Amino acid sequence: MKGHKQVYFLTSNKAKFREAMAVAAMSGVRLRMLATRKVEIQSDSLQTIASYAAEEAANRLTVPVVTEDAGLFVDELNGFPGPYSSDVFKRLGIRAILKLMENVVNRKASFHSVVAFSQPPSRPKCFRGTVAGRISLDPRGAGGFGFDPIFIPDEGDGRTFAEMTDEEKNRISHRSSSFRKLSRWLSTLHA
Amino acid sequence: MKGHKQVYFLTSNKAKFREAMAVAAMSGVRLRMLATRKVEIQSDSLQTIASYAAEEAANRLTVPVVTEDAGLFVDELNGFPGPYSSDVFKRLGIRAILKLMENVVNRKASFHSVVAFSQPPSRPKCFRGTVAGRISLDPRGAGGFGFDPIFIPDEGDGRTFAEMTDEEKNRISHRSSSFRKLSRWLSTLHA
Repeated sequence: MKGHKQVYFLTSNKAKFREAMAVAAMSGVRLRMLATRKVEIQSDSLQTIASYAAEEAANRLTVPVVTEDAGLFVDELNGFPGPYSSDVFKRLGIRAILKLMENVVNRKASFHSVVAFSQPPSRPKCFRGTVAGRISLDPRGAGGFGFDPIFIPDEGDGRTFAEMTDEEKNRISHRSSSFRKLSRWLSTLHA
Repeated sequence: MKGHKQVYFLTSNKAKFREAMAVAAMSGVRLRMLATRKVEIQSDSLQTIASYAAEEAANRLTVPVVTEDAGLFVDELNGFPGPYSSDVFKRLGIRAILKLMENVVNRKASFHSVVAFSQPPSRPKCFRGTVAGRISLDPRGAGGFGFDPIFIPDEGDGRTFAEMTDEEKNRISHRSSSFRKLSRWLSTLHA
């Protein structure tokens, strides 16, 4: 990384890339999208998934690689859909979560994001962002992606993530928090 | 494998191991349980998951390795829980599937099992077993494991997998079918 603040973000999700890029740019870090093979292992831990993917790709491509893994963890569903959020979203959609939450009083949930930076032979360095909130009774809003229409962050005015502008969401989201930590750390390295 | 019919089955699930061992023994193949690290990747494809795990372990341990990946695929749920069946079972249990299937008329589902045998430098060899059936309205029976209490195989008398004896289940199950194919192939190799 010496001498350049450009890092490769391994993802095929353009919405996720845009979110991350906007946050990193504020710290003067330029993210480049790398849409190549990403080895995602099955694990309860976002950190394990993100680290493995970053290290595997960095070893294979011999460039510094950033990966991110995120998920929606619903308290009363024992953390489901958790690390498998994107697959659950694709197969079942938002309605299934609302169905599982029918008549459930405790609607607490949180979004977690873990960013892993790998530059072998160093071990991957991880940064976590979390946002607490609750599951709405109905989907609302057309912004964001994934489960955003049913997630109401505590630190807000009652709107779902999908009802916010990108800027509003980026101020408080789990992903902006983890990428902000990564970006600050990278800036320090090059200061 | 030359000269010995003993192979290592990488799993930490004792019930799964017993099922597989009983089937393999009928073809004269002795399975040994290997309860060490198994790298399970996220994929829509059981074959991809099983092959990667077998090859990774065979390379690391330098012995021939067998892995199995299985899942319950519910038609009206777009294949959910599929490759993530065991995680979904652990987090949500059987009741969640019944909840998602409330008022759903089409209850078709199938269990799939893919067994991968890896002995580098050869590419992994895969064997698939499938059993078609339907999701019951209520859980029934105490045998088997995982989603067995809500799965009624078409090739049966209306009982769930969990209401059958091990022998009855082994005659028709997806896992017995994939392991029978593996065992026959291994026997041929040594004939």
